[in-house]
Amino acid sequence: MKIDELYALLRRRGVLWPTAELYGGAQGLYDYGPLGAALKQRLERAWTTWFVGRSPDYYLIEPSEIVPEAVVRASGHLENFTDPEITCENCHSAFRADTVLEKVRPDGVDGLSSAQIEEVVRANAVRCPKCGSPALSVPSAFNLMFDLPFGVGRQERAYLLPETAQSSYLAFPRMWEVGRKALPLGIAVIGRAYRNEIAPRQVLFRMRAFTQAELQIFFDPKEPPGRLGSRASEKVPVLRAERRERGEGATEFVPAQALVDSGLPEFYVAHLVHMLRFLRDVLGYPAERLRFLEKSEKERAFYNRLQFDAEVHLESLGGYKEVGAVHYRGDYDLRRHGEGSGKDLSVSRGGEERVVPHVLELTFGVDRNLWALADVHLGRDGDRTIWRLPPYLAPVAVGVFPLIAKEQRPFAQHLTEELLAAGLEAEYDEASSIGKRYARMDEAGTPFCVTVDGATVADGSEHGTVTLRARDSKAQERIPASALAARIAPALRPPRPGGA
Amino acid sequence: MKIDELYALLRRRGVLWPTAELYGGAQGLYDYGPLGAALKQRLERAWTTWFVGRSPDYYLIEPSEIVPEAVVRASGHLENFTDPEITCENCHSAFRADTVLEKVRPDGVDGLSSAQIEEVVRANAVRCPKCGSPALSVPSAFNLMFDLPFGVGRQERAYLLPETAQSSYLAFPRMWEVGRKALPLGIAVIGRAYRNEIAPRQVLFRMRAFTQAELQIFFDPKEPPGRLGSRASEKVPVLRAERRERGEGATEFVPAQALVDSGLPEFYVAHLVHMLRFLRDVLGYPAERLRFLEKSEKERAFYNRLQFDAEVHLESLGGYKEVGAVHYRGDYDLRRHGEGSGKDLSVSRGGEERVVPHVLELTFGVDRNLWALADVHLGRDGDRTIWRLPPYLAPVAVGVFPLIAKEQRPFAQHLTEELLAAGLEAEYDEASSIGKRYARMDEAGTPFCVTVDGATVADGSEHGTVTLRARDSKAQERIPASALAARIAPALRPPRPGGA
Repeated sequence: MKIDELYALLRRRGVLWPTAELYGGAQGLYDYGPLGAALKQRLERAWTTWFVGRSPDYYLIEPSEIVPEAVVRASGHLENFTDPEITCENCHSAFRADTVLEKVRPDGVDGLSSAQIEEVVRANAVRCPKCGSPALSVPSAFNLMFDLPFGVGRQERAYLLPETAQSSYLAFPRMWEVGRKALPLGIAVIGRAYRNEIAPRQVLFRMRAFTQAELQIFFDPKEPPGRLGSRASEKVPVLRAERRERGEGATEFVPAQALVDSGLPEFYVAHLVHMLRFLRDVLGYPAERLRFLEKSEKERAFYNRLQFDAEVHLESLGGYKEVGAVHYRGDYDLRRHGEGSGKDLSVSRGGEERVVPHVLELTFGVDRNLWALADVHLGRDGDRTIWRLPPYLAPVAVGVFPLIAKEQRPFAQHLTEELLAAGLEAEYDEASSIGKRYARMDEAGTPFCVTVDGATVADGSEHGTVTLRARDSKAQERIPASALAARIAPALRPPRPGGA
Repeated sequence: MKIDELYALLRRRGVLWPTAELYGGAQGLYDYGPLGAALKQRLERAWTTWFVGRSPDYYLIEPSEIVPEAVVRASGHLENFTDPEITCENCHSAFRADTVLEKVRPDGVDGLSSAQIEEVVRANAVRCPKCGSPALSVPSAFNLMFDLPFGVGRQERAYLLPETAQSSYLAFPRMWEVGRKALPLGIAVIGRAYRNEIAPRQVLFRMRAFTQAELQIFFDPKEPPGRLGSRASEKVPVLRAERRERGEGATEFVPAQALVDSGLPEFYVAHLVHMLRFLRDVLGYPAERLRFLEKSEKERAFYNRLQFDAEVHLESLGGYKEVGAVHYRGDYDLRRHGEGSGKDLSVSRGGEERVVPHVLELTFGVDRNLWALADVHLGRDGDRTIWRLPPYLAPVAVGVFPLIAKEQRPFAQHLTEELLAAGLEAEYDEASSIGKRYARMDEAGTPFCVTVDGATVADGSEHGTVTLRARDSKAQERIPASALAARIAPALRPPRPGGA
């Protein structure tokens, strides 16, 4: 589906809608309705199971999203987290400089001063993309962080964090004490990040408040975490930086071991494979729509020693879009916060010499992947609209329908209660025809539906059988109602990672 | 425990700590560590099960916490969400006016202008609580909301919501379309709220960013939701407003029906009972430490027709503290947003005349209750520190120990994996003595521990029995490892509400 059609469907079904739509909406902000909130919870649970569940030394924490100014000064965001903008003095629109100058300067404007950007504008006689006026100006760079007047008298300044990662770095010394004092130590956060984007767009892909799931793995560079083992032959879809520089754009499927042989560290490739398996095997993105795009030294943030963005090809957005990334950040973060706070953030285990841990960062955009799960799995099958979500991600696990409400209502409602009590998200529905009830569940991604009919009730509650129908195959089978929970529960648990 | 002792214990165990403690902390902001984040998740799940699970027409959504200015103008927060403050011109401290004037004006300063408060200060020769100087001044009232420079050029203003409730009111028209177009309709939110408190204090009780769980029930005042039914004889601990005005402070246990007979609407009392059961039966607060404090017309917000605060007596904070509330807000909210947005927010069902729904609001402070769960359930038993959390709230469900690691490690690790795969939070521990491992789990609130020993392994994985030990009773029993998950799983599911 194209973006407008998909967005309209998601709004209509109450998956999401613009924040304060009653007041005309707010740019770059969205609310999740019942289906969206439930899908988001399941997605976060699947991520946690897969990434945090990998080691008993990986922990999920829930930090504050507001931090005092000293934090963003040390992290470099106060100085560097800026987007140059171009404003039009005629129509008073504002634009990101890199967007306006896309044609005349395809490599972007990173590193240019306001004066240098102004020079590019003049030299190329660039005009306002909206009204066509040449009266463009380039104000000083615009910091994307939201600052807050904090405390009495509003003298202090605090900031909404533009990336959740900072919270994990701040938590490291405390988590070192709380944990086993061993490396690798993993600190994960699922939380909001905030950016005052100049041009929010593409619904969930460029928001002003969004949810990130991030795992920061702190490790001793002499003992980097993770070996390939049995995953050496796993084929990884990559687009290497050097091929991109030669203008080649096709994804290659390269065995993991070959990536190591080409010079990438084994621990890094092992984590690319772990991310690949999550996107492909847990979220169900087809391998041929995935790629890991390597960022060159020029493109990546200066503190990143390695950066591969995980991208999915999305029909609704017309191309590959970033949904996660694997960053090797070295010791930049702990070193900066050590300097900023005046504390020694190196650690020592037993008799060994002290080390400032390095960081491997696995990032995952929760909202973006929620959109991708709609783009990839929501589609038409003739008249039907089906959301083929993996069962453990579906907001509703099982729909329960009485064939004739006034006859089988008590049995079906009792069954619904039993399923709920067993921890399964069951939803009772007696409205309209069975066909319409199936259709409603198909559209919501519900993997299972059960129908209670006359035969069920005649058999009595101990022995009654129901019809279990699978969403994707439409296959139906007759099973005892009492066996239902045990039959479907395994499919509703998110996959766990295998051994390292 | 006293506040300092409890807070120190929670910090040491990594339940929570001050945000950015590396930089000396940030007033009124806290991070949850692994145990705190897990407990918070369980608490939110229990709340959702109990409140949202009450009706298929109650929905949990996840809205943005940032809203455009029009929203807080219509809600009245822009004008009224203020705290008068008093500042000292000598030592430059700032204080909440009601705190400084507590002795000379015990009824508070609500409704007084800055000039009137200044008059109270002069008339009573009030001095700075910190430095003793009489040079106090009363600036114009301080709005407690955080405002954000929003959008390009930072010309627009947006606000961090000071209460999650507003999001539900904004969502009502959309949810009416998404749902069954029936009243009552419930919209629940678990989300952050933000207040620039003048004097954050008492750790999780007065924070600048905190989590609320709120259910807004929209209903037709001609058909208010909920009847007492079998709950008519339930004894509700109350302190009525009229008794408080006579200076009586003791809690009375009044049958629910008697509260109705005294003039309170039945639907309102039914929800007091529902809240009571959650606090007492689900969270395990002893009935004798609970009370519902009725706010008089003078005390409650002007839009509230009825307000009872749910309070728990906390040793750490030296008295009763509010942890939730039941507000009957009438049609105030939808009326205000109807006027603010120029939209008609009344609804019609079939042929009936249109009605602007009334709102019953059930609020619940997640952070405050997390603290209360520590205050009430965490204590000493001789040398042991035990956190007697209800099992379905415990961060770790079951600890798995090999008696002798090098002999039973594979069996115990395999068992841990099996429990995790069955969806139970199992934690493997082989460090130090069995006694110390029990102690660590007791302090974390883990309800079950199993020990794998020589006999287990000798019996083989099919028939091996393990020792299951219960936290509170210390009772031990021998059961087959294969029966473990089914044995403990029921205790780990949060209670579901019974019928209305």
